[in-house]
Amino acid sequence: MVRILTKANVAELLNMVDALEYVEEAYKQLTLGNAFVPQRIAITDPAPGLTLVMPGIIGGEMSALATKIVSVYKKNPEKYNMPTVLAKVMIQDINTGDIVGIMDGSLITAMRTGAATGVSVKYLARKDSKVMSIYSAGVQAKKQVSGVYYGLNQKLEKCKVFDLKKETAEIFKSEIEKELGIEVEISESSDDLLLNTDIIVAATTSTTPIFSGDKVPEGVHISSIGAHAPDARELDTTTIKKASLLVAGLKEACIAEAGDYIIPINEGVISESDIVSIGNIITGKISSRSSDTEITVFKSVGISAQDVAVGKLVYDRALKEGIGQDIDF
Amino acid sequence: MVRILTKANVAELLNMVDALEYVEEAYKQLTLGNAFVPQRIAITDPAPGLTLVMPGIIGGEMSALATKIVSVYKKNPEKYNMPTVLAKVMIQDINTGDIVGIMDGSLITAMRTGAATGVSVKYLARKDSKVMSIYSAGVQAKKQVSGVYYGLNQKLEKCKVFDLKKETAEIFKSEIEKELGIEVEISESSDDLLLNTDIIVAATTSTTPIFSGDKVPEGVHISSIGAHAPDARELDTTTIKKASLLVAGLKEACIAEAGDYIIPINEGVISESDIVSIGNIITGKISSRSSDTEITVFKSVGISAQDVAVGKLVYDRALKEGIGQDIDF
Repeated sequence: MVRILTKANVAELLNMVDALEYVEEAYKQLTLGNAFVPQRIAITDPAPGLTLVMPGIIGGEMSALATKIVSVYKKNPEKYNMPTVLAKVMIQDINTGDIVGIMDGSLITAMRTGAATGVSVKYLARKDSKVMSIYSAGVQAKKQVSGVYYGLNQKLEKCKVFDLKKETAEIFKSEIEKELGIEVEISESSDDLLLNTDIIVAATTSTTPIFSGDKVPEGVHISSIGAHAPDARELDTTTIKKASLLVAGLKEACIAEAGDYIIPINEGVISESDIVSIGNIITGKISSRSSDTEITVFKSVGISAQDVAVGKLVYDRALKEGIGQDIDF
Repeated sequence: MVRILTKANVAELLNMVDALEYVEEAYKQLTLGNAFVPQRIAITDPAPGLTLVMPGIIGGEMSALATKIVSVYKKNPEKYNMPTVLAKVMIQDINTGDIVGIMDGSLITAMRTGAATGVSVKYLARKDSKVMSIYSAGVQAKKQVSGVYYGLNQKLEKCKVFDLKKETAEIFKSEIEKELGIEVEISESSDDLLLNTDIIVAATTSTTPIFSGDKVPEGVHISSIGAHAPDARELDTTTIKKASLLVAGLKEACIAEAGDYIIPINEGVISESDIVSIGNIITGKISSRSSDTEITVFKSVGISAQDVAVGKLVYDRALKEGIGQDIDF
C-alpha cells in the first residue's frame, strides 16, 4: 500500500518547527556516520531541462530511506504555464525496501532549505539576534524567513528585504507580516540590507557576489543558499576571509559544488580544512562563535538527507493523522 | 496529473513483442549517442537490503525520461512474506520534467530482461534455431523464454530446463507450455542442457561458472543475465575464449560490473576492445555471425535505458487505452 500525499496534504502536515528538528537530526546523523548521501545524479541532454535524482538514507531513530526526483525547467512558466521546479519524494520502508509513500516535493524542498538556514541560525547566530536581512524575495525567501524566525525561537522582530522587482517585495512583505507577525521593511538599495542587521540571508539566483565583504558588519551570521555550482557564488572572498567560522550543511557537498567556498580555496585564501559540517557544531565536537563580534558563514547546497528527513516526517505524520490516499500498486 | 498503474495494469498493457521493439530501440539510441545511462546509485547501510536508483533518458522518437527504484531485500519472503525484489518506475514528461506516471516495476524488470535476451537472439543466434536451454527456472526464467520465443519470431519449438528444485522446474514447464505452446523438457542434469540445443540462457543466482566451456557445442548463442558483480560470473573463461562475438547490452556497464567479461580481461585472455555493445550490431556498424558454427555470447547487466523504454511503452499505452488511475498531486 502506497500513501499518496498531494501538495495540499503536505502543506497540512508540515510546519517549520518540526522541519527544523528533523533537518538538525539529519545533519547530526551525517556527522555521526549514520547516514549516507550519495552524489546526486544529474540528467540533461537530450531533455530541455535538468533532472536531479537524489536518494539518501538516515539511520538511528529516524530510519528513513527516500529519493527525491526534482526537475528544473526554466522555460516551463512561459511555455507551459507550469512551475520551473517540480519535485516528488518517494519514501521507502527501510526494513523491506518497499515504496510506501509518494508525495509532492515542492514544499518539502522549500521547507528543508529554510530549515537548513534555521538550524544554522540556532547554532551560529548571536543569541540576541532580532533583525534579519534577505537578498531576494523569490521563491525560497518566505521559508528562509520562517526558518530564521523559528531558529531564533520566535524572537525575530524585523526582516529587511531587497528585490529588484518591487512588486515581488511587496507581496513578500504582506505575506510574511500576516504569517509571522513581524515587521517587514523593503529596502531601497541592496547595500542597505547590511546596515542594522544581525542575520543576512542570501537566497538569490546570482552567480556573482551580491554584496561587498568590506561592508559586512561585525557580529552577523550569514546564510547563503543560492549559487550551487563550482564557478558561481553569492559571497565574495572578503566575506569568507572576514568570517571566523566557515560552516557547511555537508562539507563534502560544498567542496564539490559551492563556488562560495571553492573559489576562495582555489585563490589560496582559505583551505578545505577551514570548512566544517554543521553536524560537528550540533554534536559539540566543534565550538560555535565565542564572541558577539565574530562573523559566521553557513553555506548549504541541497543534499538528499534534508529531503529524506522532512519526507519521512511528513509520511509518518500522514499515517498517524490519517491524511492522504492509499493506493494498492 | 499522475497516471498510477498497478501490477495488474502493467500486465494488461505489456507484451513481449512490444518490449522487444522498445528495448532494441533503446540499445540503438545508446549507440547513436542519443541516450544517457548514468551509473546507478546503490544504497545499503544502514538498511538491511540493497536499493538501486536507476534514472535514464532516451531521445529520438521515444523521448523517454524515467527512474526505476528497485530494492533487493533477501529476507523479505521469510520475515515479511513479501517479494525479495520490489520496484517502481517513475515516468517524467521529457518536455516539462513533471512526473506523469508511476507504475509497479516488477513485471517491467522481468520483461525488459527477457527482451534483452530476445534482442540478442534476434541479432546473434542462428536463423534456424529451434531449441533453447535455460539454466534455472527461477523468477527471471519465464520471461527469458518468452524473449527467445518472440526474438525467434515464434519459431522456437522446445525449451530444455534444469533447476536444482524439481518442483520449480515442474511449475515452469506447465506455465510455459500453456503460455507459449512449446514443448518443455526437464533435464536430469545440468550438462544435458548443452546437448542438442541452439540457444543457451543462463539466468541463475550463481557467482561461479555454471557449465564448462569445453562442453559448449558449436553454433550456439549464449545469453547470460545472472551474475552482475566484478567477481561473479555464470560463464567460464573457456566459453568466452571459444566465442567469436562477445556482445554486451552496454559495453561500459559490462566492463564495470560483469565478471563474465572482467575476469577473462584481467586474465589477459581477451581485451576490452573485444567486447561490443549490441547497438553496434543493431545499427549494422559491426557484423553479426558469419557462419553456423560460431559461438556468440551476449552478456547483459540491467541498465536503466531498458526500464525507461519499457516504462514509456506502458505509460503511452495506458493513456491511449484509458487504463489506470489519475491522481492530482
